[in-house]
Amino acid sequence: MASEFELIARHFTRPARRAVLGVGDDCALLNVSPGHELAISTDMLVAGTHFFPDTDPQRLGYKALAVNISDIAAMGAKPTSALLSLALPAADDAWVAAFAQGFYALADAHGVELIGGDTTRVPQGGALAINVTILGEAPAGQAIRRSGAKVGDEVWVSGSIGDAALGLNVLKGEVQLDAPARDYCVGRLEQPTPRVALGLALRGVASAMLDLSDGLAGDLAHIAKASGVAAVINVDALPLCAAVRAQTRELALRCALAGGDDYELCFTAPAAARAQVEAAGRAAGIAVTRVGRVQAADAKLPPVSYVDAAGAPLDLRLSGYDHFGAR
Amino acid sequence: MASEFELIARHFTRPARRAVLGVGDDCALLNVSPGHELAISTDMLVAGTHFFPDTDPQRLGYKALAVNISDIAAMGAKPTSALLSLALPAADDAWVAAFAQGFYALADAHGVELIGGDTTRVPQGGALAINVTILGEAPAGQAIRRSGAKVGDEVWVSGSIGDAALGLNVLKGEVQLDAPARDYCVGRLEQPTPRVALGLALRGVASAMLDLSDGLAGDLAHIAKASGVAAVINVDALPLCAAVRAQTRELALRCALAGGDDYELCFTAPAAARAQVEAAGRAAGIAVTRVGRVQAADAKLPPVSYVDAAGAPLDLRLSGYDHFGAR
Repeated sequence: MASEFELIARHFTRPARRAVLGVGDDCALLNVSPGHELAISTDMLVAGTHFFPDTDPQRLGYKALAVNISDIAAMGAKPTSALLSLALPAADDAWVAAFAQGFYALADAHGVELIGGDTTRVPQGGALAINVTILGEAPAGQAIRRSGAKVGDEVWVSGSIGDAALGLNVLKGEVQLDAPARDYCVGRLEQPTPRVALGLALRGVASAMLDLSDGLAGDLAHIAKASGVAAVINVDALPLCAAVRAQTRELALRCALAGGDDYELCFTAPAAARAQVEAAGRAAGIAVTRVGRVQAADAKLPPVSYVDAAGAPLDLRLSGYDHFGAR
Repeated sequence: MASEFELIARHFTRPARRAVLGVGDDCALLNVSPGHELAISTDMLVAGTHFFPDTDPQRLGYKALAVNISDIAAMGAKPTSALLSLALPAADDAWVAAFAQGFYALADAHGVELIGGDTTRVPQGGALAINVTILGEAPAGQAIRRSGAKVGDEVWVSGSIGDAALGLNVLKGEVQLDAPARDYCVGRLEQPTPRVALGLALRGVASAMLDLSDGLAGDLAHIAKASGVAAVINVDALPLCAAVRAQTRELALRCALAGGDDYELCFTAPAAARAQVEAAGRAAGIAVTRVGRVQAADAKLPPVSYVDAAGAPLDLRLSGYDHFGAR
């Protein structure tokens, strides 16, 4: 059986490129570009909680990095480097090789360098755990935070939402789709596309931004609370793929609003910046859709409320994904 | 039961101090001091592999950060910030509160700011997992790497080694100690002291350095291999505490050379720098002991070999801790 050091050396050691010092010392050493701030985030994925234990390791390697790069995209920052911790039930060389292949495929696509990590064993019966720390940079003061939404701004999302949640329903056997729709939705769940180019194009345009990991309802509430405002969503404006639109209205809205794993960007921008937002979407090659507006916070209303195309209020009871919650 | 967001908010949210932006957005934002490099490392600790599942959570919170700060110390860098991921079997508020208390006690002692993290659930039967990413900084070009050892240098270690390994033997019921010795050794296992001040004092003095996490035998081999040299250890010079010295010679050497969790610094320095090394130890308030020398690599010899006080070679079969290995 391969040792820990051999596994790391075999699959995860490449010479440092941009980093001053990469994998293999107590720390990696990095330069941050002059005039830039470092953006950093970390995410832990656990088998049985975030993915099915039998998930294809190549897709899992891709996704573990994708959800982290998405956090950098959500700041309007550029990803540069990552650290990877793996806690494995067994030293399975083929599994690690496939995981590394998926991880590096996305890393290379974004010029992200793996500069450090840790590999360890979980005891008998334990769950595979993956932790990625992602680093990026943005010109000082230009990163897009959650707290900048202003009354009168409009709410936008990229791509389509709810696809991944529908894919999860399919994998759980709760929904049947034809093969192309199934492949599309499961692919959206297992191989989300971090919207880095769009995030960068929205610097100086979006007033607040985050990535949708826990569902629009809960995630937009984070923007509303951080900004001291409220948001109203027109549910008939939500960008839904054909497979989601083909479901009952109730399921479609549950997928789009309370489903997780979209990894699309949700952002606010002044109404006057509408053309700039649309230009950013075109430049990044991804659709952007206006789905709501920002209004003053009101103690009698939740931070996010819903209307239909006619403006009639809808009483939807939805919340975001909470790992210790009801879902 | 508290939700994930409530747990984080209750125990791990403080206003950002040095950081531009701390916990609560997609990323934290940080400035690195002008002329400095960022040092970064990550470590995963898993219940049943790295610690007993019933370990006192306050000590565990301390240790999870300590082993990471130790990696920064081992570069001669100054720790600044950390990110914490917790995968918990249950949302146990008292456990998280105690963990946070231990974590912050050490963080505050070193001026380390918690700037981000992730809290998630492990499925039924899964093991608690903790991942810490630590950040620090050092003036550009001055971090102490593993690769700088030169033939003729001397090998040093800080403090005493083998204490934690003996403490582990005690917890496993394999060794009996009287209460003060037991408390001391278990304390060294569960509450190691990262040698930050010594690491900083050794900048410009030590030629290569790392921290002892897997035992001197295996860890010093990393320095030897990275530097293209070999090392000879005088086992009679090893700094052993009274409890380790009181064991059989075989057990004492096994603890000191192949035991893990010392978190002392091991470093090399030119013989001409002996007085500077000793001054660094005095300045940092920690003993430093010369335990060997660096010689040319020899394909017929292992990277680390052993002699006794009389210079007679010893044939010790020892290796460092390897999570997938024999131990």
